[in-house]
Amino acid sequence: MRVTCVTPLRLAWMASAALAALAAAHADEGMWTFQDFPAALVQQRYGVRITPAWLERVRLATVRLSDCTASFVSPDGLLLTNQHCVEDCLAERSSASRSLVDDGYLASDRPEELRCAGQVADVLVRTEDVTAKVLAAMRGLGDRAANDMRRRTLAQLEQACEQTSRQGSGAGSADGSAAGLGAGSSAGPLQCESVDLYEGGQYLLYEYRHYDDVRLVFAPEADVAAFGGDPDNFEFPRWCLDMSLLRVYEHGRPAHTPQYLKIDFAGPRAGEPVLVSGNPGSTERMLTVSQLVTQRDVELLPYLLRAAELRGRYIQFGLQSEADGRLVEEPLSLLENDLKETREEVQALLDDAQLARKSREQAELERRIAADPQLARATGDPWAEIAQAERVARDIALPYTFIGEGAGFNSQLFRYARLLVRAAAERAKPSASRLPGYTDAAFPALERQVTADVPIHPELETITLSLGLTRMRDRLGPDDPLVRQVLGKESPETLAARLVAESKLADPAMRRALWSGGEAAIIASGDPMIELARRVDPEARALRQRYQDEVQAPVRAALQRIAHARFAVLGTSVYPDADFTLRLSFGTVRGWSEHGEEIEPFTRLARLFERATGSEPFRVPPSWMAAKDRLELSTPFDFCTDNDIVGGNSGSPVIDAQGDIVGLIFDGNIESIAGTYWFDEQDNRAVALDTAAVLEALRKVYHADALLAELGAPAS
Amino acid sequence: MRVTCVTPLRLAWMASAALAALAAAHADEGMWTFQDFPAALVQQRYGVRITPAWLERVRLATVRLSDCTASFVSPDGLLLTNQHCVEDCLAERSSASRSLVDDGYLASDRPEELRCAGQVADVLVRTEDVTAKVLAAMRGLGDRAANDMRRRTLAQLEQACEQTSRQGSGAGSADGSAAGLGAGSSAGPLQCESVDLYEGGQYLLYEYRHYDDVRLVFAPEADVAAFGGDPDNFEFPRWCLDMSLLRVYEHGRPAHTPQYLKIDFAGPRAGEPVLVSGNPGSTERMLTVSQLVTQRDVELLPYLLRAAELRGRYIQFGLQSEADGRLVEEPLSLLENDLKETREEVQALLDDAQLARKSREQAELERRIAADPQLARATGDPWAEIAQAERVARDIALPYTFIGEGAGFNSQLFRYARLLVRAAAERAKPSASRLPGYTDAAFPALERQVTADVPIHPELETITLSLGLTRMRDRLGPDDPLVRQVLGKESPETLAARLVAESKLADPAMRRALWSGGEAAIIASGDPMIELARRVDPEARALRQRYQDEVQAPVRAALQRIAHARFAVLGTSVYPDADFTLRLSFGTVRGWSEHGEEIEPFTRLARLFERATGSEPFRVPPSWMAAKDRLELSTPFDFCTDNDIVGGNSGSPVIDAQGDIVGLIFDGNIESIAGTYWFDEQDNRAVALDTAAVLEALRKVYHADALLAELGAPAS
Repeated sequence: MRVTCVTPLRLAWMASAALAALAAAHADEGMWTFQDFPAALVQQRYGVRITPAWLERVRLATVRLSDCTASFVSPDGLLLTNQHCVEDCLAERSSASRSLVDDGYLASDRPEELRCAGQVADVLVRTEDVTAKVLAAMRGLGDRAANDMRRRTLAQLEQACEQTSRQGSGAGSADGSAAGLGAGSSAGPLQCESVDLYEGGQYLLYEYRHYDDVRLVFAPEADVAAFGGDPDNFEFPRWCLDMSLLRVYEHGRPAHTPQYLKIDFAGPRAGEPVLVSGNPGSTERMLTVSQLVTQRDVELLPYLLRAAELRGRYIQFGLQSEADGRLVEEPLSLLENDLKETREEVQALLDDAQLARKSREQAELERRIAADPQLARATGDPWAEIAQAERVARDIALPYTFIGEGAGFNSQLFRYARLLVRAAAERAKPSASRLPGYTDAAFPALERQVTADVPIHPELETITLSLGLTRMRDRLGPDDPLVRQVLGKESPETLAARLVAESKLADPAMRRALWSGGEAAIIASGDPMIELARRVDPEARALRQRYQDEVQAPVRAALQRIAHARFAVLGTSVYPDADFTLRLSFGTVRGWSEHGEEIEPFTRLARLFERATGSEPFRVPPSWMAAKDRLELSTPFDFCTDNDIVGGNSGSPVIDAQGDIVGLIFDGNIESIAGTYWFDEQDNRAVALDTAAVLEALRKVYHADALLAELGAPAS
Repeated sequence: MRVTCVTPLRLAWMASAALAALAAAHADEGMWTFQDFPAALVQQRYGVRITPAWLERVRLATVRLSDCTASFVSPDGLLLTNQHCVEDCLAERSSASRSLVDDGYLASDRPEELRCAGQVADVLVRTEDVTAKVLAAMRGLGDRAANDMRRRTLAQLEQACEQTSRQGSGAGSADGSAAGLGAGSSAGPLQCESVDLYEGGQYLLYEYRHYDDVRLVFAPEADVAAFGGDPDNFEFPRWCLDMSLLRVYEHGRPAHTPQYLKIDFAGPRAGEPVLVSGNPGSTERMLTVSQLVTQRDVELLPYLLRAAELRGRYIQFGLQSEADGRLVEEPLSLLENDLKETREEVQALLDDAQLARKSREQAELERRIAADPQLARATGDPWAEIAQAERVARDIALPYTFIGEGAGFNSQLFRYARLLVRAAAERAKPSASRLPGYTDAAFPALERQVTADVPIHPELETITLSLGLTRMRDRLGPDDPLVRQVLGKESPETLAARLVAESKLADPAMRRALWSGGEAAIIASGDPMIELARRVDPEARALRQRYQDEVQAPVRAALQRIAHARFAVLGTSVYPDADFTLRLSFGTVRGWSEHGEEIEPFTRLARLFERATGSEPFRVPPSWMAAKDRLELSTPFDFCTDNDIVGGNSGSPVIDAQGDIVGLIFDGNIESIAGTYWFDEQDNRAVALDTAAVLEALRKVYHADALLAELGAPAS
């Protein structure tokens, strides 16, 4: 399981998706914000007291990575997360002769810790409610104007927040005074992001302590971290040591992180109440039924077919040679994860019983609104407005996907080119009138993204680009004017190979020069990928604008009215949809029953060896084979809980009532994928690594004694 | 467009699919049998008289190929069909230095005509209604016993028919006396097949004149036959010369075929009434809504994902070298055709409005049954019985697909192995108690199939087999006992490569030896693919049996009661679902309107050259570039009609009121794909080649003067 909220092809729907949640989550449903955590409910259900101090400590020890979660586990900036969250870094730091993905890595001392390019770490230190300001700015405006004003206002608020933070930080003072959340670590610059919860029900500014020097300390071999590979992904029972350790640095030294979590190496007990802190990426539990159906038909299913084809191309490419096999390993494993997740999402959205349940809930809400004339007047008919917006979404789905979102040009080089072209054009405008994502506040992250020294593999670029071009021609038709203009007399394969070969954008120095040179440099560049991005941009922007005006704006306005009506009818004991901001969920360690069979909540080390075949992906690495006789084979390995999590929670600590770490989230079961749309407490389970297995591995397999000492492990 | 009824992975649902059609087809809907053709309706609507003599001549001139249609166009056995129907043969007769697919072929004289291995040609010469015999045999039996008895009775009837035919044929007499259909050509052996129309409403014996020496006379280059390739497939407007000429031989000489159709090289006019004679492969217009939904979810969608992945592997494989590109060309084009068709079928089955319309029709039928107490008693609740059978179908879908249907072992070598293993085992039993498909009547075709000298490409076999094994492990899980047993310690890729390398089944002589040697030879063989097929067979047979008993039998019984109820309520002005037997449809040459734009029914030759880019698949071959100045560029090229056709009609003649050929069906538009489930006369169009373009091409590009003389073309 990986966060999917950052996959470019799947980004578009999210903005229109989040919506105030249904009332009174039954069971252990809910991804709660720290500021509105239902501590009383947890106390009543489990007798566990979650105090404000507990919440503050856990919040300040929980870290958001680029697309995962981690937690501080020592005062010297040591971070615990998953191996699959650092796979990018492992691949980047590998050489032709040595694969850190295959071999794993253990820094013998701190100078050996390896910087991960582009990896960032953010700690949420302060939140501020700005709902009143935003609503005041939007008051009285039509859908489109309100949508523009909302974005502009939030951009201005972010900018003002950053300026205040920089002043505070520059003056060397403590962080901006906390609105109910308390102060964090005093180190690292501060960054502000606006957050929109409950689809316009609540606007917040989140202030993060930001670290951009993150180094690799330890990762096990992929064979044991991802034992079972794609066949076992999203499954339980499971036998994966999916862990890694990173360290946050500042000014070249390990960061001082006094707020960290202790690891309890005994692991959890069956039935024990546990909490999971982290950044769930994206849920869409509040979409209307017709929105879900549109999403299934025009977004998920076409994406699934392109992804399945890409899987075939990757696999066949990897069979050409051992080197090609290594090259494709990481992108393939990311893709397979996404494929399985999307496949199960589609299956969920073909489940007539669940869709019927949602329809009934929707009808019940409509009935209760209709029963209150004043509420009915204020609410209008948002469902009809959404249906109209969806007709537009379906009409423009193909050009919007291929040109607007760029699926037709699917390659890292094109994404760089589009970003450079747009950043140069947008920079000339006032921050608040720019394209979404190009505000002043966003620029540092864009710069990091575009200039990061990550390897570009021309063979893989050619594969993804030619596939995108081929399917674009297929779906828009060979007589589409833009298709004809882009392809000219070339075939998609030939054009893709030529663009990748001739573009110089794989060189970070070239990208940095274009980033700094602005519009003049872009126009003068002559780089064929830049030229392609410029040629396509007018139509891409027009499609984006149309989508924004005729789909997003009316849908937002309608969802906001539904949200307010739902608040009016059902009250406020609700949680907002996930959006890769900090949340806390509660639950217990427990299995489930499948076809009448009980699935135990724990696996044991012994079965790892029994399942090994010696062939990928069921190969136990040599280090473990050598250590087998020393290992206590009854050690609990992985376990499952009924906490409500989704992708983005990867690397989240599983925390006991005392606030100690007893496990490390790395996946969910196959039934958890439907969690994007609804939480089924019967079957939905989070999957975690047991800290008892962590101790056994670090001590007896990896002999990581210095790390164990830093983690406060009991003497062996 | 190609017939899909022969794709092994998609065969299972068809048996349970066909069902007596809805009453009174509006517009030009309907794939009518020759014996029940609505001549009065055609007379009334178009003023065209279709006489019994017209029907007999067209029937005897229409030919069923292995998976297409063709028609006799000279008294010397000359057949007109599509280039895509002979692509197999072109590929088989190619060498490393010369590709007949790429270069086309024109036999300079009859000795140069090339035999197509495995290609057969069948002419329907006699039909006999055996409904009363079958119903009498089934009377009073339960669902499963009735299902077994039906199969056994039909097998016995086929066998008796073949014996009678052989005696007649052996004695050199004319064919068995015709029951309403008249006598056919006196040449070629006769074969009998049982046909089940209206899902048990009507049982027939069809007697065919069978030819197995079919030779290639002419095919144009793939670049012009399939101009536009996959992007243009299932589209209109269109510019394809998708034609070929074959010749049927017997005793080494061209067959004498006095019943042939004349070609009218003027082509059709807009608005002209036309008829299409041929063998539509499969429609499922009478399935219940819940059957359609089950089909979509458990059959089509999973198949689509496997096929998309295979497309990616094929494409990447083909990029390795020019030779690999050529090797993969034909299987890739078959796959892409199937992919597009399945994708559009899934889209059709996600169309809520159409499903709602079907639900309303279903509810109306239920209401009218309920209003007639006697009918209600006789009908019972077949919909509930179908729903129960579908729950079983969904439960066993994964093992049934991968093991029962063999998708987990997807390769020609495994299919040979399974066929050899089963034929040896079944031959020992009485014909009527064997597995479906292994009756005495079926054995000659099985033998031809398994011993045909067609090339096996180990690289492609390894690709499809490893993909099947990988997805089987993925979906059944690595801990499934059969998966563990099959894979052992090997990875799917390693096992597939080893099996393909070590098996000797690619050699037709080896397959012939195993076919003749029977069970003893099979057991002694030691061939690893045979051993795999034997190892898997008990579970595969058990799954098949369960599917037959718990899905097919109750569904058949229920559908038969629905069919009888529908007859009772709606009368008999209906046509049966398509099943690759001979049908006739009527309609007119006309375009349609799309997004308010009128699509003209004809394209012209000029635009072929305008659309050419020089790159695959928009390349005009050198022969056409050289002839360009001689060509009349205003010549009509392709056209469309509103006849009701589906895959299997490829190669069908488009016939005018006089019984002359004016066009050659080779495709349908994208909207025609939903024709599997319903006929939308607004948008569903058949796509055909104009005989005027045939003349222009044969005369000015290919200088095929002898052929033109044989076809009775006007002097130039």
